[in-house]
Amino acid sequence: MVDSHAWQVRQYPDPHVTEDCFELIPVALPDPGPGQVLVRNTWTSVDPGLRLRLRPDAPSGYFAAFPLGRPMDGIFTVGEIEHSDDPDFGVGTTVWHSQGWRTHSVVDVAEEAMNGVARLRALDVSAMTPQSYLGPLGAMGLTAYAGLHVVDGLSGGETIWVSAAAGAVGSLVCQVAKLLGHRVVASAGTDDKVRWLLDDLGVDAAFSWRDGPVVESLRRAAPDGIDLYFDGVGGDHLEAALEVANPFARIALCGAISDYEREPTGPRNLFLATSKNLTLRGFRGSAHVSLLDEMQTRLGAWLADGSLQSREAVFDGLASAPTALADMLAGRTVGKTIVRL
Amino acid sequence: MVDSHAWQVRQYPDPHVTEDCFELIPVALPDPGPGQVLVRNTWTSVDPGLRLRLRPDAPSGYFAAFPLGRPMDGIFTVGEIEHSDDPDFGVGTTVWHSQGWRTHSVVDVAEEAMNGVARLRALDVSAMTPQSYLGPLGAMGLTAYAGLHVVDGLSGGETIWVSAAAGAVGSLVCQVAKLLGHRVVASAGTDDKVRWLLDDLGVDAAFSWRDGPVVESLRRAAPDGIDLYFDGVGGDHLEAALEVANPFARIALCGAISDYEREPTGPRNLFLATSKNLTLRGFRGSAHVSLLDEMQTRLGAWLADGSLQSREAVFDGLASAPTALADMLAGRTVGKTIVRL
Repeated sequence: MVDSHAWQVRQYPDPHVTEDCFELIPVALPDPGPGQVLVRNTWTSVDPGLRLRLRPDAPSGYFAAFPLGRPMDGIFTVGEIEHSDDPDFGVGTTVWHSQGWRTHSVVDVAEEAMNGVARLRALDVSAMTPQSYLGPLGAMGLTAYAGLHVVDGLSGGETIWVSAAAGAVGSLVCQVAKLLGHRVVASAGTDDKVRWLLDDLGVDAAFSWRDGPVVESLRRAAPDGIDLYFDGVGGDHLEAALEVANPFARIALCGAISDYEREPTGPRNLFLATSKNLTLRGFRGSAHVSLLDEMQTRLGAWLADGSLQSREAVFDGLASAPTALADMLAGRTVGKTIVRL
Repeated sequence: MVDSHAWQVRQYPDPHVTEDCFELIPVALPDPGPGQVLVRNTWTSVDPGLRLRLRPDAPSGYFAAFPLGRPMDGIFTVGEIEHSDDPDFGVGTTVWHSQGWRTHSVVDVAEEAMNGVARLRALDVSAMTPQSYLGPLGAMGLTAYAGLHVVDGLSGGETIWVSAAAGAVGSLVCQVAKLLGHRVVASAGTDDKVRWLLDDLGVDAAFSWRDGPVVESLRRAAPDGIDLYFDGVGGDHLEAALEVANPFARIALCGAISDYEREPTGPRNLFLATSKNLTLRGFRGSAHVSLLDEMQTRLGAWLADGSLQSREAVFDGLASAPTALADMLAGRTVGKTIVRL
């Protein structure tokens, strides 16, 4: 029998994620039955959204909370098929699926097909690394691209502010927005990240939100206002965006990481949306699977010719997954946080 | 010389509008010069938005605050031309313009043309009353229609919640939405208003927000959730809408009357916009002047055949304008609040 392990949730964090919220348990893998494949996982994903599922009252409409004491489902993972009787998924095929944070997964092809973008999918790794499908060519790329799409941001020529810009999604949004011809203002939480955004990603202006009131930093970085805002933070960042927004600006509400470990407050100046004819569009990448092929084609070409960078914060070994999550939520990682199994 | 009077602001209300915030002063009208017309005003408008201009820090992007000690500009008004040398605006023509809360206005045609929808405009009063141009055929109708437009609500067939539904705009939104084939849920602040909405306007469900937590009343009235929300209230109403919204629901942010006389808080559950793929669109009718003709044609036809009602809360005499505003803000009026001069 395969030596297999999986993380499960022991207790929900209150408020901060620590290693003892989880336990790594041995799993007796069933032999794959008809319509099932056995995947040896090679890379698994660590995303801010996981924090929202580590509480009993996950937001309605979102993925359900992780149940206590059971392996965590619904986490993007890449692996190689070790056993299969499905002709579409032969042994040795690299795939992604949604049963992460474990060494091996027995995936039911039909059942997994209900998971939308996360369904079992064969990946072309002839030119791209397997783990790029957890980043720019996967859910991160789709979220970045869909966010630009929902605010009519794919045409270029405007000023866009991207917060959490050194994160997995934000760093893609910055680069794609530049490639599309926008003026890009980026913000992050450390001077090193700001330096990386300016020097390596080539954004037009950048600031650290720790350097003073966000609205003042934003005004200095975008003296002519912003037309688009890609929000990964919420809180004072969203209030600053409403304040500095030009008439008819559009805001993509992607996440609100500043609210995930405290009581959210809500933007006190939301009336500016009315007075300035602003649009706020909440969205999830998974609602825009129809854009996946287009996104992979465009971002794949930019990756291949070197005009798009994909920085990874790699943690080694399944045992490091909780630390990876805690580090990412605390702002100690840059780019896409992933675990190599 | 004409015996002419105008209201001006003596002090900004804190927090409630009272008569002594204003003073009615005699005005020495200049003789109209070239390109100017003299209008004897017959009806002037009383709108919730006036409250936002009765403070030193009017929201950016909105109309400027009313300056203290000067006649109030930018208030829709209907009147008859008494003197003119402009061939397009002959003596006796009924017009609207933006210089309200006074008995007479000398309007500079070219200057007024800068005011968008509020510019001097000749009105067809052969079939419609003059004051209907302050209600369904004017800014109120345009705001109602534009709000439905910005949330893709002009097609019908969905469930829409309309708050402040017994107000000038809300009562139009309810009726237009019904005529377009929506299921309409309405809320207001008194049992009489709720009765009127159900019995006279024919909405499908209605409740008073005073009868308990708004979110619970809304859930009972819309057990299958809402697809559209027309927000005139903000605060707990907007939070309830986010909570009860179906996936991909759209919210028209028209106003936030519950916030106008206190510190706004902002919706604490805005993350639901992300998790449920919701869109919030702030808008002002004045940004959609291009819809004015279409709106007047459609609403005019419905008014003419009796399928659209226009209820008016009429106050008599210019001296009553501050009382009319205070009554409207306190929820003591139904329909369009107007002053007959």
